[in-house]
Amino acid sequence: MAQKPSIPKGTRDFSPKEVSKRTYIMNTIKAQFEKFGFQPIETPSFENSDTLMGKYGEEGDRLIFKILNSGDFLKKANQEAYKNSDSLKLTSSISEKALRYDLTVPFARYVVQHQSEVEFPFKRYQIQPVWRADRPQKGRFREFFQCDADVVGSNSLWQEVEFIQLYDDVFTKLKLEGVTIKLNNRKVLSGFAEVIGEQDRLIDFTVALDKLDKIGEEGVKKEMLEKGISLEALKNIQPIFGLKGNFGEKVEVLKQILSNSEIGMKGVEELEFIQNVISEMPLKSALLDLDVTLARGLNYYTGAIFEVAPPAIVKMGSIGGGGRYDDLTGIFGLKDMSGVGISFGLDRIYLVLEELDLFPDTVTANTKVLFINFGEKEALYGLKAVQKLRDAGIAAEIYPDTSKMKKQMNYANRREIPFVVLAGEEEMNNKVYGLKDMVSGDQEKISLEAMIDRLS
Amino acid sequence: MAQKPSIPKGTRDFSPKEVSKRTYIMNTIKAQFEKFGFQPIETPSFENSDTLMGKYGEEGDRLIFKILNSGDFLKKANQEAYKNSDSLKLTSSISEKALRYDLTVPFARYVVQHQSEVEFPFKRYQIQPVWRADRPQKGRFREFFQCDADVVGSNSLWQEVEFIQLYDDVFTKLKLEGVTIKLNNRKVLSGFAEVIGEQDRLIDFTVALDKLDKIGEEGVKKEMLEKGISLEALKNIQPIFGLKGNFGEKVEVLKQILSNSEIGMKGVEELEFIQNVISEMPLKSALLDLDVTLARGLNYYTGAIFEVAPPAIVKMGSIGGGGRYDDLTGIFGLKDMSGVGISFGLDRIYLVLEELDLFPDTVTANTKVLFINFGEKEALYGLKAVQKLRDAGIAAEIYPDTSKMKKQMNYANRREIPFVVLAGEEEMNNKVYGLKDMVSGDQEKISLEAMIDRLS
Repeated sequence: MAQKPSIPKGTRDFSPKEVSKRTYIMNTIKAQFEKFGFQPIETPSFENSDTLMGKYGEEGDRLIFKILNSGDFLKKANQEAYKNSDSLKLTSSISEKALRYDLTVPFARYVVQHQSEVEFPFKRYQIQPVWRADRPQKGRFREFFQCDADVVGSNSLWQEVEFIQLYDDVFTKLKLEGVTIKLNNRKVLSGFAEVIGEQDRLIDFTVALDKLDKIGEEGVKKEMLEKGISLEALKNIQPIFGLKGNFGEKVEVLKQILSNSEIGMKGVEELEFIQNVISEMPLKSALLDLDVTLARGLNYYTGAIFEVAPPAIVKMGSIGGGGRYDDLTGIFGLKDMSGVGISFGLDRIYLVLEELDLFPDTVTANTKVLFINFGEKEALYGLKAVQKLRDAGIAAEIYPDTSKMKKQMNYANRREIPFVVLAGEEEMNNKVYGLKDMVSGDQEKISLEAMIDRLS
Repeated sequence: MAQKPSIPKGTRDFSPKEVSKRTYIMNTIKAQFEKFGFQPIETPSFENSDTLMGKYGEEGDRLIFKILNSGDFLKKANQEAYKNSDSLKLTSSISEKALRYDLTVPFARYVVQHQSEVEFPFKRYQIQPVWRADRPQKGRFREFFQCDADVVGSNSLWQEVEFIQLYDDVFTKLKLEGVTIKLNNRKVLSGFAEVIGEQDRLIDFTVALDKLDKIGEEGVKKEMLEKGISLEALKNIQPIFGLKGNFGEKVEVLKQILSNSEIGMKGVEELEFIQNVISEMPLKSALLDLDVTLARGLNYYTGAIFEVAPPAIVKMGSIGGGGRYDDLTGIFGLKDMSGVGISFGLDRIYLVLEELDLFPDTVTANTKVLFINFGEKEALYGLKAVQKLRDAGIAAEIYPDTSKMKKQMNYANRREIPFVVLAGEEEMNNKVYGLKDMVSGDQEKISLEAMIDRLS
């Protein structure tokens, strides 16, 4: 049954080096999450379909991977849909489970289901894969990890401050200095819509404004016009198209524009609080910027909106984002739970660290020393030393077969193992080991104790 | 759209404590894998269906979770199967992908697909979830993690030795002393079948023998008789039903029984080699035993067979197992690749450690200190200290809201946070912090530096 093996499009195999680098990023994020008091949870890879369906809009529903019921699944099939060959309608009757699409909805489900066991405010983090039946393209996969931290059960702005510090800490630890943490507030966007008398077109307005970077002021205005927003009204908020200066200067401009909008001024006040605290406690390596064009998942964000851009020298989209969403758990029946959270884009962070050569050399878990296998007696002599090395925390291997020396040395070379031990009868008699440095080529005969010291 | 949320049967949510304990076990296993020179790989959660189907027998095929094709999946449906409402035949035409059922087949697929990038012998480990549509019951789940280490590309017996040492090291590190590593060899089982003239009934023979523990000698013989194995012939191997003594003594009995079976004697020789090396390098805390009734996945094991039993005081099935299988990758077209590997049963190890109270107290990642929030100024004063504590590697939180003192203290209690900081105006003026030990109730006013020392 020989077949050329492959994997489904949009999925990936990860080689040892890739796994090690991904683990390094995830462990760095985890360690910071835990220092900030976030606790890990994990949820099942698949949920009941009705937990997920209808939570991500029509497009989202389409992109959710559905799991076919086991056994004679047609028994329960919707007869009408079956007769009409209606795939869409048939689905729910032959598939009860679906792969999770993100970590936020399962988190909301978890909070409601376990509300009696959980302490509020509940600070949780979750690092697990999600699946989307999206068209695969460069940098977009059908299986990818999300790394989320959220707090639910408090609307304190101190949390927004802490999330900014958390971003700063993680990227500083990763030695990725100079990221920009962009901050906005949904209430400011609502204020803009109010000031131009277009509260009903808030989404059209922000979707267009979000494109300022890409299509420029004229493009944005053209799109707004097409959506029925009067250009005349836009004059009231004209300054936002050319907003310049530092955070505080931008805030002053907003105060003028939004002075007649209660909700807008509430948003400005929130931005100002965050800015004041951060100015008292300067960030380590990240920059904080106010970006009024930032909208992201506007449909559910209700307060702060975050996005992180990599240093300008890297051409890459955002490497993190998040925001506050009131009523996170309302969809599952637990009302009035405000939530705020952020996410790290693992795949993009990986690409950025790779491009800037920021992975430490020590990241790749690799064997430190290979013992050459000269035969049964020598292998036993070697394995005894290997065991002592391992006990001392040194990754060590013995070549399993008595192959030709060249083959064994090639193995060490290709695996990039930095040291090789050659120990034959003479070394055994003298209770020493021939340690060869594969980089310098230097070779010396040393005792086991000296070797442990040397390789530790 | 309020609904009582739940998760699919056979799946689990993991709470922060559970995640931390599971992570502790996995990290311990990982660290040992790496010291033994195994390298991590990861494969996609779903594979093309034809990669998995037909690899686990008919029962296995049934238990594989299939993913429904996206979009209008009925377009490509097998028309005949559709007309006949034949679920089984319809499946392959409406589902092209399936969730992985184990880590071995994806590993074989990986090796063949990446054979030019991989160094042989290839030592890989893989810790990822697998999914099976099995009937859920106590201790059996539809989603669970497997922790596998395998070597492919060598048939050296040194690897069997190293896997025994690896089991010993992992369980010693987990402080689970006194596990029994049971060893058998498929060739010995083949030898038995040969000696009684029932080579064709090898599987019936070993399936029955495997039950000796449960149904006793009479039960086993009864089953063999039913399968057509002559009891007269069994006399030739009668001693295996009451095999006693240490490893070496058992080997001597086998030598007598199998003296006329070439394959049987080969198996004995392999067992003896392993035993000889282990006697030169005694295990740290595990016991090695020869168990000729051990069969496990006989269908593919061709040499050594391993199984690990927890200490006798715990009533629990095996917590690990594995063996050698020649021609691991043949199903994907790469012939003559011998493989040998072992697996750790994460869920059962968890239960054993829990029952014996072997999880270290430090396992649960938890916040060390909570700062009580008395108001905006105090919170800022507190957050500055929190930042320094975090920088020193101490998990610290500030309560986000200015809630009643009692509520904040309750939060600390229920989260089992061992220290609380109370800092009001007086402390701010004196640049100190009121540190309260939540266990002893002791309270003291100390400087930030002293607090960092104290909590480190």
